[in-house]
Amino acid sequence: MECDELDIDKIADKAEVFVTALPHGISKEVIPKLIEKGKRIVDHSGDFRYKSVEVYEKWYNTTHGMPHLLDLSVYGLPELHREEIKNAQIVGNPGCYPTCSILGLAPLIKNRLVDTKNIIIDAASGVSGAGRKTDLPYQFCECTENFKAYNVSTHRHTSEIEQELSLLAGEELTVSFTPHLVPMKRGMLATIYANLNCEKSTSELIELYKEYYKNEYFVRILDEGKLPETKFVAGSNFIDIGLVVDKRLNRVIVLSAIDNLGKGAAGQAVQDLNIMFGLPEHRGLENSGLYL
Amino acid sequence: MECDELDIDKIADKAEVFVTALPHGISKEVIPKLIEKGKRIVDHSGDFRYKSVEVYEKWYNTTHGMPHLLDLSVYGLPELHREEIKNAQIVGNPGCYPTCSILGLAPLIKNRLVDTKNIIIDAASGVSGAGRKTDLPYQFCECTENFKAYNVSTHRHTSEIEQELSLLAGEELTVSFTPHLVPMKRGMLATIYANLNCEKSTSELIELYKEYYKNEYFVRILDEGKLPETKFVAGSNFIDIGLVVDKRLNRVIVLSAIDNLGKGAAGQAVQDLNIMFGLPEHRGLENSGLYL
Amino acid sequence: MECDELDIDKIADKAEVFVTALPHGISKEVIPKLIEKGKRIVDHSGDFRYKSVEVYEKWYNTTHGMPHLLDLSVYGLPELHREEIKNAQIVGNPGCYPTCSILGLAPLIKNRLVDTKNIIIDAASGVSGAGRKTDLPYQFCECTENFKAYNVSTHRHTSEIEQELSLLAGEELTVSFTPHLVPMKRGMLATIYANLNCEKSTSELIELYKEYYKNEYFVRILDEGKLPETKFVAGSNFIDIGLVVDKRLNRVIVLSAIDNLGKGAAGQAVQDLNIMFGLPEHRGLENSGLYL
Amino acid sequence: MECDELDIDKIADKAEVFVTALPHGISKEVIPKLIEKGKRIVDHSGDFRYKSVEVYEKWYNTTHGMPHLLDLSVYGLPELHREEIKNAQIVGNPGCYPTCSILGLAPLIKNRLVDTKNIIIDAASGVSGAGRKTDLPYQFCECTENFKAYNVSTHRHTSEIEQELSLLAGEELTVSFTPHLVPMKRGMLATIYANLNCEKSTSELIELYKEYYKNEYFVRILDEGKLPETKFVAGSNFIDIGLVVDKRLNRVIVLSAIDNLGKGAAGQAVQDLNIMFGLPEHRGLENSGLYL
Repeated sequence: MECDELDIDKIADKAEVFVTALPHGISKEVIPKLIEKGKRIVDHSGDFRYKSVEVYEKWYNTTHGMPHLLDLSVYGLPELHREEIKNAQIVGNPGCYPTCSILGLAPLIKNRLVDTKNIIIDAASGVSGAGRKTDLPYQFCECTENFKAYNVSTHRHTSEIEQELSLLAGEELTVSFTPHLVPMKRGMLATIYANLNCEKSTSELIELYKEYYKNEYFVRILDEGKLPETKFVAGSNFIDIGLVVDKRLNRVIVLSAIDNLGKGAAGQAVQDLNIMFGLPEHRGLENSGLYL
Repeated sequence: MECDELDIDKIADKAEVFVTALPHGISKEVIPKLIEKGKRIVDHSGDFRYKSVEVYEKWYNTTHGMPHLLDLSVYGLPELHREEIKNAQIVGNPGCYPTCSILGLAPLIKNRLVDTKNIIIDAASGVSGAGRKTDLPYQFCECTENFKAYNVSTHRHTSEIEQELSLLAGEELTVSFTPHLVPMKRGMLATIYANLNCEKSTSELIELYKEYYKNEYFVRILDEGKLPETKFVAGSNFIDIGLVVDKRLNRVIVLSAIDNLGKGAAGQAVQDLNIMFGLPEHRGLENSGLYL
Repeated sequence: MECDELDIDKIADKAEVFVTALPHGISKEVIPKLIEKGKRIVDHSGDFRYKSVEVYEKWYNTTHGMPHLLDLSVYGLPELHREEIKNAQIVGNPGCYPTCSILGLAPLIKNRLVDTKNIIIDAASGVSGAGRKTDLPYQFCECTENFKAYNVSTHRHTSEIEQELSLLAGEELTVSFTPHLVPMKRGMLATIYANLNCEKSTSELIELYKEYYKNEYFVRILDEGKLPETKFVAGSNFIDIGLVVDKRLNRVIVLSAIDNLGKGAAGQAVQDLNIMFGLPEHRGLENSGLYL
Repeated sequence: MECDELDIDKIADKAEVFVTALPHGISKEVIPKLIEKGKRIVDHSGDFRYKSVEVYEKWYNTTHGMPHLLDLSVYGLPELHREEIKNAQIVGNPGCYPTCSILGLAPLIKNRLVDTKNIIIDAASGVSGAGRKTDLPYQFCECTENFKAYNVSTHRHTSEIEQELSLLAGEELTVSFTPHLVPMKRGMLATIYANLNCEKSTSELIELYKEYYKNEYFVRILDEGKLPETKFVAGSNFIDIGLVVDKRLNRVIVLSAIDNLGKGAAGQAVQDLNIMFGLPEHRGLENSGLYL
């Protein structure tokens, strides 16, 4: 496969939609021009995931170069925004951690079953989550046989999670979010803690999740006693969700797993494209995962 | 090295102290006889970690075979029980997760700085934490390139953590504890969440931790901005602790790392032996860790 | 997916062909009955890979339970035996090491370019090559961060390689074959040494390989300066072959890589099935490999 | 630990011996000055491993900057050159592959038991063998779950192996040497093939190896039926050697394993230092290896 110099005029005629995967802030040289030409965009950076320029600028510590385009953009999480995605001109493809966290919490938040002041999201990702960087911390000998947290309390994805959960809750809420690095290539698991504000058993909540996601092809709610593992979703666009209610503490622990490169990135972009063009939502995403 | 058939009479004369590493419940054929002969014991199972037979029997779902010996036993965490260990006849060597979790929380609990109703311990261990089992889930192809939680809300170590933290708090407290399996051999990291009941900065809490552990050779409190990684303690008896205060939420996140086979098992047993026999506490434990 | 008790009569009506993957020697309870019913078989064990019962019995150290069926069987390496496979009643699906080794050597042997007395095949496989065994040597902590040889000079696949290379050479030849275990799931690489009996450059031999395999969809001959890596073929049915002539020694080093579960097992079985039923040979095998 | 700017005058007074670990060619700014001041050197680069400037310049494709110092230097493999090392002014610490390969072959070559025209050394190393480079090929996601050969027929260590084996043989000999990259941190295994020029059984050769190395603390010859694994030597200065005679082919396969950072680098440097200063040879090298 060959790469060419970027020439907007030259490429613009070739397609109706463009998938951009530039670092945040960089695509302001590209996307506005494509929008002017009436093209549609699915963007992988953080630039089009926010409703509020202020939130973006605070967490990304930079100026947003195209704030006027935010009105044209939709947060590309199909399970929450499918209708808006259909006709969106710009889709901001969600981050991997937000996808995993928001879908794990949505049924609880939407149904107002938990205390919104004590939500803890403890998550872990394979090394491909860092991109294809050659920095020392991603060198084989530094990563393998190691486990660590990073960006504790400051990771940008926190703001993305809070935006979407607040929308669902109908109130502003905040969460603790802590990412970790696992010595594996692909895969992401979120372990989510929330205090129940009512009495619910594990099986009752599982039923509620199954109902909530009953029309969602890519969301698999596991039966009681089963827990997600990243290897069951690696290579796929699925998200596996399991949960356990700790009766002693009246607290629910939700586990959700995705492939950070699948449902957490390129897979979800394809899902969005399918929705934007009226194609079957799983077109090109039939793989059931690698396992081995 | 050769193994012999176990003959209590034959071995009893050979030493003053015996280190036992049988599964819980099994050593009741061995330890009472050694105690009768006036021997001292450092035991690796869960049998001698509890003050309350009831708690043990509930979490281990079995009958305790030697409840009369619990009065002779001490919980072998030197940083909390050094004086008792000195003359203990039986030392119950702590579990790996409890060692990592309790030492990470002790300064906060002892100083009554956190809400004791919302303590979350999210931890992860290398595969050697499961022992040298040949069960399918510990096979190479099942473990590598995978990350998962297990025993969610039911892991036995929860009760051990709660016993010791309750002692420190002067009140009964409960915690959420969730273990995860990391595709690496050695190493354990606990990510601990607690709501502050006062205003404290990251640097203030780090100072408080440094003060609390100022005489502890094996506890290393990291400076602000540094976080523990399992590779920094692998092969050693050290525990590395770092922390971050999330001002937005007035919540502290404590990270603590040990080698589950070192400070989490055999290393701590040696530390206990040194204390029991008046030897320098780090005798035989000078290794600084492997890193690579 | 559910498994049923094996009932030959019940399953026989359901298909024209059966894929068997029982350990060698075991399928004698199954295959003869299916053959009687006129069914075709693709078998994964060593039972139907040999022309000579004696060679099989010597290397497998057992009696062959169905020697009369060997006349109905074909060695299922499509690149060498495509025509026979088309109408074969039994196809003995080749071993992973033989597939990798034979295809790496075939152009040299067929063209009589190397000394047949000094062929060395040094090969390495991921852990899935051992099957899904729960033996201690395949436990995570035993495999990871380790590299070793096994079955040195006694591995059964040696005899399979020798059978096929002797056929190509038109003379009996023997080889050294040494397998190694790599801490990875999938993938197999053979490093093959042979003394040239003439003067040939790297590029000349690459051309000769390209010509030899010009009609083979699943054989990719790499250009000069490129070498195969297992990650380029993992998840695929491709075999990548590269080579280097060491002018100093007039020796050629051939590198060939496959996915031991793809071209080395199930993938090749599908390729055989396609040939047996006149389907496009790459039906169901279009995956280009995972890489990441 | 802090690093200072290099100031030869300032450091020269601080020690009698200096251990240098600069890339080849670079230390010509440092070592000559230290030699002038009468200091002794243990150098880790390739600069002082060669008797012949021509061989060095051909394989390293550069000019040797200090050829006049080669007369003062000794190849620092204690098992072959202990007496010379004692009083050497410069010790060229051997490469990891040469250490593993030469010690694996020395008894066969010295005793003239093998055909010197067909020696094949197929070796594999953990990723730390590449140093702490941040190049893309050493990134976690590129290395893990992969196996490949590199520098086929052109690796510089070939010339080092040939120099030492030729000295032992009393004739110029050449070898095939092929390195591979294993997804692990530490460890190196050489699989060596040589045609016997006489009849010898596995046990006879093992006896001969045990006799040859009977005074060598760091060389462990394994009993018949045992094969070295890298995990048995990781973290140590030992080399484990096993062998198998393939009676069918009258060929011997020797397996030798070291820790590439131990006996293959820093460990051997310490061993050399001990010899240079009349200390017990295993001072500081008592670790028996990590295994786990």
